[in-house]
Amino acid sequence: MREKKLFTPGPLGVSLSTKQAMLVDLGSRDLEFIQTVKSIRSRLVELAGVSSDDYTCVPVQGSGTFAIEAVFTSTIPRTNGKVLVLENGAYGRRFGQILKVLGVDFKILTFLENEKVDVGLVEETLRGTQGWTNVAVVHCETSSGVINPIGEIGRLVKECVPDASYFVDAMSSFGAVDIDFTASKIDFLVSSANKCLEGVPGFSYAICRKDKLTGCKGWSRSLSLDLVSQWETLEQTGQFRFTPPTHCMLAFKQALTELEEEGGISERRKRYKENNRIICEGMKAFGFKTLLDDTHDGFIITSFHYPQHDNFNFKDFYTRLQEKDQVIYPGKVTKTDCFRIGNIGHVFPRDMRYLLQCVQEVCSDMGIPLPLKE
Amino acid sequence: MREKKLFTPGPLGVSLSTKQAMLVDLGSRDLEFIQTVKSIRSRLVELAGVSSDDYTCVPVQGSGTFAIEAVFTSTIPRTNGKVLVLENGAYGRRFGQILKVLGVDFKILTFLENEKVDVGLVEETLRGTQGWTNVAVVHCETSSGVINPIGEIGRLVKECVPDASYFVDAMSSFGAVDIDFTASKIDFLVSSANKCLEGVPGFSYAICRKDKLTGCKGWSRSLSLDLVSQWETLEQTGQFRFTPPTHCMLAFKQALTELEEEGGISERRKRYKENNRIICEGMKAFGFKTLLDDTHDGFIITSFHYPQHDNFNFKDFYTRLQEKDQVIYPGKVTKTDCFRIGNIGHVFPRDMRYLLQCVQEVCSDMGIPLPLKE
Repeated sequence: MREKKLFTPGPLGVSLSTKQAMLVDLGSRDLEFIQTVKSIRSRLVELAGVSSDDYTCVPVQGSGTFAIEAVFTSTIPRTNGKVLVLENGAYGRRFGQILKVLGVDFKILTFLENEKVDVGLVEETLRGTQGWTNVAVVHCETSSGVINPIGEIGRLVKECVPDASYFVDAMSSFGAVDIDFTASKIDFLVSSANKCLEGVPGFSYAICRKDKLTGCKGWSRSLSLDLVSQWETLEQTGQFRFTPPTHCMLAFKQALTELEEEGGISERRKRYKENNRIICEGMKAFGFKTLLDDTHDGFIITSFHYPQHDNFNFKDFYTRLQEKDQVIYPGKVTKTDCFRIGNIGHVFPRDMRYLLQCVQEVCSDMGIPLPLKE
Repeated sequence: MREKKLFTPGPLGVSLSTKQAMLVDLGSRDLEFIQTVKSIRSRLVELAGVSSDDYTCVPVQGSGTFAIEAVFTSTIPRTNGKVLVLENGAYGRRFGQILKVLGVDFKILTFLENEKVDVGLVEETLRGTQGWTNVAVVHCETSSGVINPIGEIGRLVKECVPDASYFVDAMSSFGAVDIDFTASKIDFLVSSANKCLEGVPGFSYAICRKDKLTGCKGWSRSLSLDLVSQWETLEQTGQFRFTPPTHCMLAFKQALTELEEEGGISERRKRYKENNRIICEGMKAFGFKTLLDDTHDGFIITSFHYPQHDNFNFKDFYTRLQEKDQVIYPGKVTKTDCFRIGNIGHVFPRDMRYLLQCVQEVCSDMGIPLPLKE
């Protein structure tokens, strides 16, 4: 099967050596596997830049959404829970879907999709109403590429409602975008194996303040997604409660080794930023316009407006690029027609340059002259 | 990394070619991936021996327990739900743990761990109390190896409480033990990728009666585990709602091809039965005693009593076998000291014979003469 280059927010491409780490079957009680899980958990806490005295990492089987739901179901008090969701895109709205199904009290504070969460309005809301137990925000809103000011929000949460839990969904940012856990006052953060750390999809994880997590015992509305119970069993036995995705975990261990070899988070960030710079400059030179203006500095994924040309049709554009083994992604904002190009995963500056060449060829084949007219 | 032979109920060993199918990254919107998911879903319905007019297959990210919880959370009515759990081991008890966390009304009817569920008592209970909405049983209770009479129970459920949903956990039996879906009146059945179909762990699946599933819309207490919503999106778009474990799905597709090549379910059953015959006869010749008597005919996994010898220590026995690359499994019954040997996965008669040779060597090294004395 021919492998394509994935310029997507996930599933994204990973190295061949990461995938080759999956060529071994390990039992879940095997010492090697237990050590794999242990080293992954402690390495993730290290990558978060926090002490293992204060924080722990709890892996959860399933996609990133499973870990997000695990945080909500496990950390919202059974009685008088009241959640403030800060939303400026599809992933913030998904928080609302989860909370609705869980049947807990929540309010969604909505912001424009191409703008950051407005900290002033958050403060007003936090001070205006009593009883918030949890505040949740998406760090990099992958639907648009907006990076929200999680530090300012976190400090505000702890000032206005000191007892509330602060939850950051850092799905597509953790491991590349700088996150100061301590200064941002983060209690719970979620990301997935198959984002900036470049493992294969199959599990996700929550990095949790231990004292907060301990206080949540017995709150979960789900057995499978009970973070506290998952944590307790991992601590006691080194094992998952239920069958772990052993092959995915082995791939992730290899992915973490390759992160080291690349030079750690700072070097990976450099590569992604360079990917982003090349694609943005190149696409702008072709006359494409980005959804976000220059006040934004996200580099994970970029949303481009559809070009204003009669021959442009996204499905056709996407398919022609795919025929050249280049996989881009549809847009996910509600009011504007966009497509997205991801800069993360096992893609390098040369891949971005080649993608630009393919965009040029495809536009030519579609009868869309570049540069586009204003 | 040296690969060991796994004589476990899972994660179990799979073929190298199944693992090699994971060496490709596919986007979740890729036509090839969408076709992979579609073919897996329809093949599983075929393997269940039912018509796709009446049944559908809904894959769920995560381990088997995630799919079990998905069935419970999605198919128990939001009001007046009342579940009868038939339990003769750890996996039946796990149903109770899930239901307790979900906060629904349920009753557990408990049977001895080394005996089948007693259909007479089930009938008494079904007729004795009104209002059952769901009945659940484990087919092969992997903790002991007992196979429960799911056909008799199913017919009884439909006779006594025609509107109730009948749920069978066939985690370790589907794809090897004969299951007559229609005659057994099964509404929902769950199994996992990494059991008798010999894929890698990472997802599980429910095979669902469509008319029953349709009636459950809006009942789920979880977004991630909402079977109806997962089904609707798969039908509408061919895609999962949330990131699928693409590599695990590719491995599973290959595993299904290899099932065909082996000659389908009947030939696989023959191999597992032969594995079981060899290990049981060999261990009995060594003087080991099985937990279950001859009234049982399960062949998935076998529980053996600890031998009555002062030098026997399970941890030592296990470790020494593991040093010879042979991985067996601890017991999981409550009142008897047992260990287990699984007959499923990518293991063949020659592997069982070699395991017997290793057991003999380990017993000799431990100073336990074989055959054991009465």
